[in-house]
Amino acid sequence: MMRVRDLGEFGLIGRIAGSLPQPPPDVVVGIGDDVAVLRGSGPDYFLATCDVQVENVHFLRTTTTPYQLGRKVVAINVSDIAAMGGTPLWALVSLALPPDTDVDFVDGLYQGMGEQIRLAGGSIVGGNLSKIHSEIVIDLCLMGSVAPERMILRKGARLGDLVLVTGSLGDSRAGLELIGHPEWSISDSARRTVIEKHLMPQPRLKEGQALARLGCVHAMADVSDGLVSDLQHICGASRVGGEIWVENLPISAACKEVAERAGQDASTWALTGGEDYELLFTAPETSVPEIQRTLADEMGTPSHVIGRIVEEMSGVQVRHADGKTVLYAGGSRGWDHFSGS
Amino acid sequence: MMRVRDLGEFGLIGRIAGSLPQPPPDVVVGIGDDVAVLRGSGPDYFLATCDVQVENVHFLRTTTTPYQLGRKVVAINVSDIAAMGGTPLWALVSLALPPDTDVDFVDGLYQGMGEQIRLAGGSIVGGNLSKIHSEIVIDLCLMGSVAPERMILRKGARLGDLVLVTGSLGDSRAGLELIGHPEWSISDSARRTVIEKHLMPQPRLKEGQALARLGCVHAMADVSDGLVSDLQHICGASRVGGEIWVENLPISAACKEVAERAGQDASTWALTGGEDYELLFTAPETSVPEIQRTLADEMGTPSHVIGRIVEEMSGVQVRHADGKTVLYAGGSRGWDHFSGS
Repeated sequence: MMRVRDLGEFGLIGRIAGSLPQPPPDVVVGIGDDVAVLRGSGPDYFLATCDVQVENVHFLRTTTTPYQLGRKVVAINVSDIAAMGGTPLWALVSLALPPDTDVDFVDGLYQGMGEQIRLAGGSIVGGNLSKIHSEIVIDLCLMGSVAPERMILRKGARLGDLVLVTGSLGDSRAGLELIGHPEWSISDSARRTVIEKHLMPQPRLKEGQALARLGCVHAMADVSDGLVSDLQHICGASRVGGEIWVENLPISAACKEVAERAGQDASTWALTGGEDYELLFTAPETSVPEIQRTLADEMGTPSHVIGRIVEEMSGVQVRHADGKTVLYAGGSRGWDHFSGS
Repeated sequence: MMRVRDLGEFGLIGRIAGSLPQPPPDVVVGIGDDVAVLRGSGPDYFLATCDVQVENVHFLRTTTTPYQLGRKVVAINVSDIAAMGGTPLWALVSLALPPDTDVDFVDGLYQGMGEQIRLAGGSIVGGNLSKIHSEIVIDLCLMGSVAPERMILRKGARLGDLVLVTGSLGDSRAGLELIGHPEWSISDSARRTVIEKHLMPQPRLKEGQALARLGCVHAMADVSDGLVSDLQHICGASRVGGEIWVENLPISAACKEVAERAGQDASTWALTGGEDYELLFTAPETSVPEIQRTLADEMGTPSHVIGRIVEEMSGVQVRHADGKTVLYAGGSRGWDHFSGS
């Protein structure tokens, strides 16, 4: 008997995608991507995505407040739509709750979800409540729209493009490590920075829309699984290879402080930590100054060149400052939900 | 501390709905209904609904096959869109699986979902996979469309309307009882009928679309929670009361056979059993012949007059053949996910 842990998340997605019939023509982008792109009766494309938070897998009730959890479950879905240059509109919330759940938990969760969807310009329009015996499950389905000529997909990266990322990488992983080790002596400001980045990430919605408006970005994704893994998704969909330049990775002082205390390499967290919800995108070198200026001037958001697109046969490589290159094979994954404990 | 079991499903929905801000104008029907109705960039309204199946709450792996479960999780969502006269289009599937789940389970589930969505003319366009420690959770979000002038809502029932229902009621409950008592001696054909109705219900999609096309139906819902409860939803939304005539309830010979063996009243199963996924609707008396002829001629589906719409102050009453009337108070619920075991 084969079990899902043997296949892993992406193996299972591949198996499912292969078993389904060819989608009809109204499905512009279907199964296998983070967001489905759909053709309705109007000029704009519909976007639809869902993401689930499972107690004791994605969150612990002891280390996050219901409000923070509500913010996060909306934020991670908004981030997926942001990475296409789209506009979030409507959310459905499926909630499976043990009957002895405190009603305050539900109140806090909806406060957080309501606040984050309002920040994104959308609203909660429905959902479903169910009993479950053990762990809380929160599934959020977010719909949105995008003008076809502005949409940015994973596919589209071109040979010679530079690879850029907004903000900084590794903070979320640093926050997760610090939550697991509250006894570590870390400065208050660093502690606050990395824990907030982990528990209440802010999607780069305005940045995604600005990049879509500029029209020079060839491919985009958000950093959810981990930088290497997400660049592999872009490269796989675009049939190109990619290089990441370790010395260029934007790593915050807060992340470095926590990594040092942990005896870990901050750049490893930046490469594979995941859940940063920054935007990862490729564009021609000539467009980079305009991109960086626009994001800095309009949103105050820094963006950094961290690598470039190369031939497909090179795969995705991480180049260290000492010239050493590490090849991440196709099987490498930043975050596989079925492996581990 | 108040727990969700103290509030119940509908109490909790009311609390959530009350806590959220007024929806923006693109939300035609929002939280509290089975299906959200949304205004996009095109002439058609966009519909979105979700429904979850939780292991050991909604299904047991020992009594349903993965294929049947896949069929059902799609069917119950299609039924919600059918009850508005809409067209199902796209499904997102969120799956939370324990890592030791047999891959065959996932294969069978997707076969069933794929088959049922194909029957409805839609397709699976994406989703999400996650680990969970204990019970399998399947959340399906179904999107669709409807022309605004054809849409039928829960609200709209008018004084003097007759109340109709397609097919027969109580079979699903009979199937559930029989699954719990496989030792009961029941004819093969009755056993097959009621168990299939429970495990693999067929949504009345073509019937819903035909009723929408006729243009004479004032209000509609599907029978998911139970007839009394679903009529209460229609009456509450329409600010009217309703009478159900017990002697008119369409109850199959199969359901009667199982009820007799169980020592139960088949009409109680028809009134409160739920999960029949028949269409419940109201229309003026003059339109009834055309409705019944259309459903019978085009789909071979029988429909029966089972009551009428009365003044709001009467509430929803069940009238027995002996003249006795039972008042079901507003608090009565056919299926409350947080009560019971």
